[in-house]
Amino acid sequence: MNYRYVIRELGLVMIVLCLCMVAVMGFAAWNWSGGNEDERMAVLALVMSAVVGAVAGLFCWLFGNRSGKDYLGRREALLLVALTWLIGAAVAALPYFAWAWMEDEILTNHAFSSFVSCYFESMSGLTTTGATVLGDIEGIPKGLLLWRALTHWLGGLGIVMLFVAVLPTLGVGGKKLFQVETPGPKHDGGVRPRIADTARTLWLIYMGLTIAAILSLRLTGAMGWFDSVCHAFSMVSTGGLSTRDASIGYYDSVAVDMVCMVFMLLAGVNFALFYTLARGKFVNVFRDTELRVYIVLKIVVTIFVAFNLLGQPIISTGGRVIEQAHAGQALQFSAFQTVALHTGTGFVTADYDPWPFLSRVLLIGLMFIGGCAGSTAGGIKVIRFWVALKVMASEMEKIFRPNVVRPMKVGKSVVDNETAASAVVYFLAILVLFAIGAFLIGEFEGRAGRPDFQTAMSASVSTLCNVGPGLHGVGPTMNYGWFSPGSLTVMSLLMLLGRLEVFTILVLLLPRFWRSD
Amino acid sequence: MNYRYVIRELGLVMIVLCLCMVAVMGFAAWNWSGGNEDERMAVLALVMSAVVGAVAGLFCWLFGNRSGKDYLGRREALLLVALTWLIGAAVAALPYFAWAWMEDEILTNHAFSSFVSCYFESMSGLTTTGATVLGDIEGIPKGLLLWRALTHWLGGLGIVMLFVAVLPTLGVGGKKLFQVETPGPKHDGGVRPRIADTARTLWLIYMGLTIAAILSLRLTGAMGWFDSVCHAFSMVSTGGLSTRDASIGYYDSVAVDMVCMVFMLLAGVNFALFYTLARGKFVNVFRDTELRVYIVLKIVVTIFVAFNLLGQPIISTGGRVIEQAHAGQALQFSAFQTVALHTGTGFVTADYDPWPFLSRVLLIGLMFIGGCAGSTAGGIKVIRFWVALKVMASEMEKIFRPNVVRPMKVGKSVVDNETAASAVVYFLAILVLFAIGAFLIGEFEGRAGRPDFQTAMSASVSTLCNVGPGLHGVGPTMNYGWFSPGSLTVMSLLMLLGRLEVFTILVLLLPRFWRSD
Repeated sequence: MNYRYVIRELGLVMIVLCLCMVAVMGFAAWNWSGGNEDERMAVLALVMSAVVGAVAGLFCWLFGNRSGKDYLGRREALLLVALTWLIGAAVAALPYFAWAWMEDEILTNHAFSSFVSCYFESMSGLTTTGATVLGDIEGIPKGLLLWRALTHWLGGLGIVMLFVAVLPTLGVGGKKLFQVETPGPKHDGGVRPRIADTARTLWLIYMGLTIAAILSLRLTGAMGWFDSVCHAFSMVSTGGLSTRDASIGYYDSVAVDMVCMVFMLLAGVNFALFYTLARGKFVNVFRDTELRVYIVLKIVVTIFVAFNLLGQPIISTGGRVIEQAHAGQALQFSAFQTVALHTGTGFVTADYDPWPFLSRVLLIGLMFIGGCAGSTAGGIKVIRFWVALKVMASEMEKIFRPNVVRPMKVGKSVVDNETAASAVVYFLAILVLFAIGAFLIGEFEGRAGRPDFQTAMSASVSTLCNVGPGLHGVGPTMNYGWFSPGSLTVMSLLMLLGRLEVFTILVLLLPRFWRSD
Repeated sequence: MNYRYVIRELGLVMIVLCLCMVAVMGFAAWNWSGGNEDERMAVLALVMSAVVGAVAGLFCWLFGNRSGKDYLGRREALLLVALTWLIGAAVAALPYFAWAWMEDEILTNHAFSSFVSCYFESMSGLTTTGATVLGDIEGIPKGLLLWRALTHWLGGLGIVMLFVAVLPTLGVGGKKLFQVETPGPKHDGGVRPRIADTARTLWLIYMGLTIAAILSLRLTGAMGWFDSVCHAFSMVSTGGLSTRDASIGYYDSVAVDMVCMVFMLLAGVNFALFYTLARGKFVNVFRDTELRVYIVLKIVVTIFVAFNLLGQPIISTGGRVIEQAHAGQALQFSAFQTVALHTGTGFVTADYDPWPFLSRVLLIGLMFIGGCAGSTAGGIKVIRFWVALKVMASEMEKIFRPNVVRPMKVGKSVVDNETAASAVVYFLAILVLFAIGAFLIGEFEGRAGRPDFQTAMSASVSTLCNVGPGLHGVGPTMNYGWFSPGSLTVMSLLMLLGRLEVFTILVLLLPRFWRSD
């Protein structure tokens, strides 16, 4: 294992993060000069954090740079990825902590006074989860809110780069999964130019989506530029952090809802498909089985939930009370919540916690499934879910026809046994981690009375699948600020595990991984 | 599909069940003649049920007998197995229903007044689950209690025959699983003589275990003959129905606890191992990986739970209150509950519902895992759990060493990809069915207020894994009598699914299964 190289690259990541902080600091300073006194502390916090982070990053870079070898193997790549999120979240948490530390006199018991909570918030940002410890989001300076949104955007970009450009080229992890239907870009030449080429195209796609999202949100007229930018960052990364306590429900606008749905939907699609589209291969995209299942799932659940809500009361997170929802309202709120939770964005327009049991269960089910592979969405991923269903069907057929061998197909491609087994194992691993997570959260909270199972379970699935809100104690109108440090640490780990596709992190626990051979 | 043949064999099953009823009726009549007036109605109920069942069975047999073909294919076998439990449970439920119907004047709102509850009780018996709808077990005539225990014994015998003698020979389902380590009996000659030969040995083993259990229980001095027989039937089939409201806790005897633990432990072992033992191959048995994992799991959990209970209050189901458990008591109750729940027997000596969270979670975890394959225990089965763990480990290694191919081994045998995939898919299927079950139970009960998640979840796992008791509303001191008919139907199906290893039942839902080709 080439540790020095890993540390050098990690140093670079930290420096990049700090440069981003400086950019956000520029915005905060401009805001402050415009007469907004609240921003003063945000500017200070961002400067201090950027300096501390950059010094640490530089130290890492210099230490690592003494190594002459410039080789990134599979194991180095895996370690680097894990450390990027683990250490990156610590660096990204500095501004929150520094701010609360300086505002000490006017804040009492603020969530950001604890570093564990700050770490949770920045991990939630970088993993594009969107769970927040903040009860009063609107009381935070705009500079910090922009930083929060930017962590989403950076995290989302990192994930797309990683899972579409880097890892498949290295032959790590999800490779086979992407090649089921949407063969990734293939060029001649070595690994590095290939990665660079793919990365450039993905970067352009991601930027394009972001700009389109900002403009669309601004054009609805309901949002100012600041809110548009923050929510756009949050949407294209399927993050979910908002600048408002009531999330998207604050705007109470059908136009905003529609724009959000379109961009959340797009952000949950495999970015390799956009890549294919950019290469002009339209037919391949519409034949994509994962995309079809992804859309059909949404339509079916939306209709179910809408029927379920018909004539029921709906309370928007903005406080509007609908006594008896008519068809249009039921459809509007059901479609928004379905898209927001399935893609793992976690925006909310209505308090779905008191919705009928069936609706809640379907929404939780979609959280588990998540968006498409190669997107910024979390969860098991549609393609794995689909393959697992196919494996079950074939397992059943084997019972009464043990001698019939039928190749398993997704669309027109044959799925080999290894890929199928991988998908099923991943599904199982998510369920097991979910159970362990729910148990640990319940155990940590249980010390203060009996654990609330619904809260513990939904907090576990919501963080593991990078969604954000859950049910009950972590419902749409609640936040994660009340959890004990133990639970927050567990959930930070769950977010990381879910984000980096579980085994990419778990592999670090294998002794064999560390043995040099 | 040779329907007539299936119906003929089903008729035979019904007639056999009715003959067993007649035998139990003999006991009830003898008891009645001894002056026990309560038994009069039990005798009548058993006679009526036996007549109705036998006539229906005879009708089926005659109808099916007109078919000249005497061929049992895979599909016929699967259909017959499913119908045996589905229709068998209806026949076995008749005595309960008839009794409550005749005792109408003195019973108000008795659980047995509803046929759905009676069906649940007899399905619980035949699937060796041990969940009961009865709140006042001791108020039921002894004739019916014996019938209840006998359904366990018959169900357990059926499962052993099916999964060790019949299905593997037909090449159905679990075949490969058994051959991982304990190659089943192999003889020359056709299928039928082989089945008959294996079945005879298994029958002798099962009978031997039963007689040993009866004598051991009687020798403790704490139980009379009647209780000894009923509990022995319950134990060797890992059932769990008791003749006492307080279950084994009623006797408050260390000797009884010890005897029960030994026989529950034995009943959770793969019966193919006893078969091997009967053939004199001791070494094979002690090298069996599944057996080792099965025992180690128990020891580890017992120690954990015992530590957890140390100094805590323990309330026995018999009503004895231990203020602060010392090491011996903690170990006694923890070992009993661990063995009882892991093997899916579901006997209880202590109310574990208020036990520490960690203990409850470990016990629920063991319920999922269950005993060994080829035993009467429920759950995922130890060998599948073990193989799934190995698959996960190999999946992780693949991430950083995609080119290393290492054969997966359990003990000294290599597990092929197909078997490994089967184990993982089964694990996944159990978790998904558990979730669907918990959801449906929650939904049915939710109509009468918010569903209690802990109750719904533990009822789902406890019935699906054929255990019996769960937590909270279905805890050790509670029963299933309060559930709505909808939930009881769902749970009856869960018991059936868990008992017949899921896919054996789910396969009937495939249209392809019914197409003749």
